Amino acid sequence: MRTVDLIQRKRNGEELSSEEITWLVNGYTKGEIPDYQVSAFLMAVYYQNMTDVEVGAMVESIIASGERLDLSSISGPKVDKHSTGGVGDKTSLISAPLAAAAGVKVPMISGRALGHTGGTLDKLESIPGFRTNLSADEFKDVLDRVGYAVVGQSDTVTPADGKLYALRDATATVESIPLIAASIMSKKLALTLDGLVLDVKVGSGAFMKRQTDARKLAQLMTTIARRHDLRAQALITDMNQPLGYAIGNALEIMEVSQTLQSAGPDDLTRLSVEIAARMIFIAKIVPTLDDARELAYARLRDGSGYRKLKETIEAQGGNSQVLDRFELLPNATGAMEIFAPRGGYVSAIDAEEIGLASSMIGAGRDTKEDSIDPAVGVILEVKVGQKVESGAVLCRLYFTKEDRIQEAAERVEDAFRLSNSEPEPRELILEVVS
Amino acid sequence: MRTVDLIQRKRNGEELSSEEITWLVNGYTKGEIPDYQVSAFLMAVYYQNMTDVEVGAMVESIIASGERLDLSSISGPKVDKHSTGGVGDKTSLISAPLAAAAGVKVPMISGRALGHTGGTLDKLESIPGFRTNLSADEFKDVLDRVGYAVVGQSDTVTPADGKLYALRDATATVESIPLIAASIMSKKLALTLDGLVLDVKVGSGAFMKRQTDARKLAQLMTTIARRHDLRAQALITDMNQPLGYAIGNALEIMEVSQTLQSAGPDDLTRLSVEIAARMIFIAKIVPTLDDARELAYARLRDGSGYRKLKETIEAQGGNSQVLDRFELLPNATGAMEIFAPRGGYVSAIDAEEIGLASSMIGAGRDTKEDSIDPAVGVILEVKVGQKVESGAVLCRLYFTKEDRIQEAAERVEDAFRLSNSEPEPRELILEVVS
Repeated sequence: MRTVDLIQRKRNGEELSSEEITWLVNGYTKGEIPDYQVSAFLMAVYYQNMTDVEVGAMVESIIASGERLDLSSISGPKVDKHSTGGVGDKTSLISAPLAAAAGVKVPMISGRALGHTGGTLDKLESIPGFRTNLSADEFKDVLDRVGYAVVGQSDTVTPADGKLYALRDATATVESIPLIAASIMSKKLALTLDGLVLDVKVGSGAFMKRQTDARKLAQLMTTIARRHDLRAQALITDMNQPLGYAIGNALEIMEVSQTLQSAGPDDLTRLSVEIAARMIFIAKIVPTLDDARELAYARLRDGSGYRKLKETIEAQGGNSQVLDRFELLPNATGAMEIFAPRGGYVSAIDAEEIGLASSMIGAGRDTKEDSIDPAVGVILEVKVGQKVESGAVLCRLYFTKEDRIQEAAERVEDAFRLSNSEPEPRELILEVVS
Repeated sequence: MRTVDLIQRKRNGEELSSEEITWLVNGYTKGEIPDYQVSAFLMAVYYQNMTDVEVGAMVESIIASGERLDLSSISGPKVDKHSTGGVGDKTSLISAPLAAAAGVKVPMISGRALGHTGGTLDKLESIPGFRTNLSADEFKDVLDRVGYAVVGQSDTVTPADGKLYALRDATATVESIPLIAASIMSKKLALTLDGLVLDVKVGSGAFMKRQTDARKLAQLMTTIARRHDLRAQALITDMNQPLGYAIGNALEIMEVSQTLQSAGPDDLTRLSVEIAARMIFIAKIVPTLDDARELAYARLRDGSGYRKLKETIEAQGGNSQVLDRFELLPNATGAMEIFAPRGGYVSAIDAEEIGLASSMIGAGRDTKEDSIDPAVGVILEVKVGQKVESGAVLCRLYFTKEDRIQEAAERVEDAFRLSNSEPEPRELILEVVS
């Protein structure tokens, strides 16, 4: 077998066999096939797509590249939740404790901010003392005792995915539906989960800009799950404006706290509860989805989800008082208000632009090596559909350094669209794929 | 400027600026941009093509990556000839001495066999003593004294092309019209030529399988030439059967000798003389193309082309007696006849299959590191259009080792198509682009 022949066949739109895909992934993981051949292959995949058989083989070989994290010693149904990434998307930090408070075990492997989207690990690390680098045993211990544990990607689980992702990131081959699906699902299947709820974001603030692409991705991921006897559901949700009001790491922790105390933004609350409900339903804690919704709302209202997040923070070395006393979180030193240039209805808030502006002042990173500033970000004062007067505050930028603040402010200003007529209301949850 | 952004824009079908292409080629040549980003870029180019502006910038930056070979000290019009590569294509070794015998200076930079196609350097190196690694001064000296000199690609002229070609070869990105055009034309423009005749092969034995693609390549190359004030013409010629009867290095030298003595195959003679005529015409030795054809035929008939090739062989250290005494060339030790399984007309001889079979028994190489066997190859006994009886000899395989001979014989047998009715005669020279 020659790598160049496999690249050429994929380039010509032919299907490769499972054996060929496996040979390619294994050779790459072992360093026998060079980066430059794999990146050409990935670009060919970008244009030619992959069949279900090819994606299946890719998932299997990525899992086989490392150790599996066996959770069978932990009692109770294990269900994870995964979002494809958005702006202001702190849903994980609300859904997971709600589900855990209802009896689900949530073993969460999370990522970091990249580009305009945030990462759960970075958000949690704005809490003083919080450790995301737990060992496998520590992770299992927190999961068993508390019910919700969060770690970063380990080097020993799916190492091929780490290597492939870094290559894709450098070669403009991230935005490929089969490659995204293989990356997400191999990581999830490397754990012995019972269920998985996927939140596929679509819109200006998401990687998927079109709903048809989001649907394809959701269908592909649930198909892969089914083949591995993993119960999975995918929601396709709107990311044409940021979720909630807060964008930025510590700012989002504050909003998580408010939401778990029933004082959060409506969109964020609704989506988080719906995801928690589907986690509870898929875990078979209750017989129907309606029962699961009722249970998730109960866990929100009675404050047990809020207490569960505090328990996880404590168990992972963090100071859980931050959820009550926001001054214990890193705080920005400066703020700048962005005003409405004229009156009208807010018809759109470009989530990608808001995310990029927030990243630009330090909330995110351009490259994996950049460090982030946990204190900074954006707080929206309005959402799509609201009426504003000329000169009203649209949002505030919170910063610690003056660099690039003007550039970010202009970007944020451009992100708001004002119209004379009231915009059509937009659905938050667009579709369910299962 | 970030490489990943340039890859992404090309991937999305956007045009890059001259500055961006130049930055990319320069960064790659200097080793600042890694192979894996350039290979992804090249695969994106395979799908998205390049505009004339992009190709122009690529040609300029490849030329600028090394030294130019200045031939202005040599008197007389300098005209080269280049073929995109075929099976049994020994035209260069006939056209060039004919043109040189008519007063053209032919500074030829040639390549080696790769895949199913042969290379002029390998053919010449089957002549005992022949040196293709002349220094720039030696090359200019032979060119000045004899009128025809041949060398391989130098490391100091267009080094970026060498690096890019090796990467394309390993990543299935060879078959891209703008990349082929940029590679050929940068090498030709790095010499100070007055004219260039291009032979763009089309058909089963060529890189271009379709005439529309061959036409696009021919047009792109002549456009690039025009921008650089280089007089150029391109012939589009048929490669649906091998050219002449001989395929294999020493075997082709024998056929070159016969052809320069007016005893060669009709197709090879016609094409070689036509190319020589266009070299003579473009060099402005005579006022019209018809005059040039007459002169080229005269140089064939009077044996001065034949004597010119002998002079070049001697000047480059080779034993020119091989052209009269074929036993001085490397000779195969075994021969195998391939018979017609039934009677009929020869309707096709798949040139790619013949080329691959010949390569398989040692005439070519699979990778750049393989060595070749100059003695081996295939001699056709019939050409397309001929009538054969059942059991007639279709061709002979000449070999020195028994390895893979059965496999090669089967491949050669499959290359011949027999039909009951006489096939339509096919044109050899399909189009002229200038």
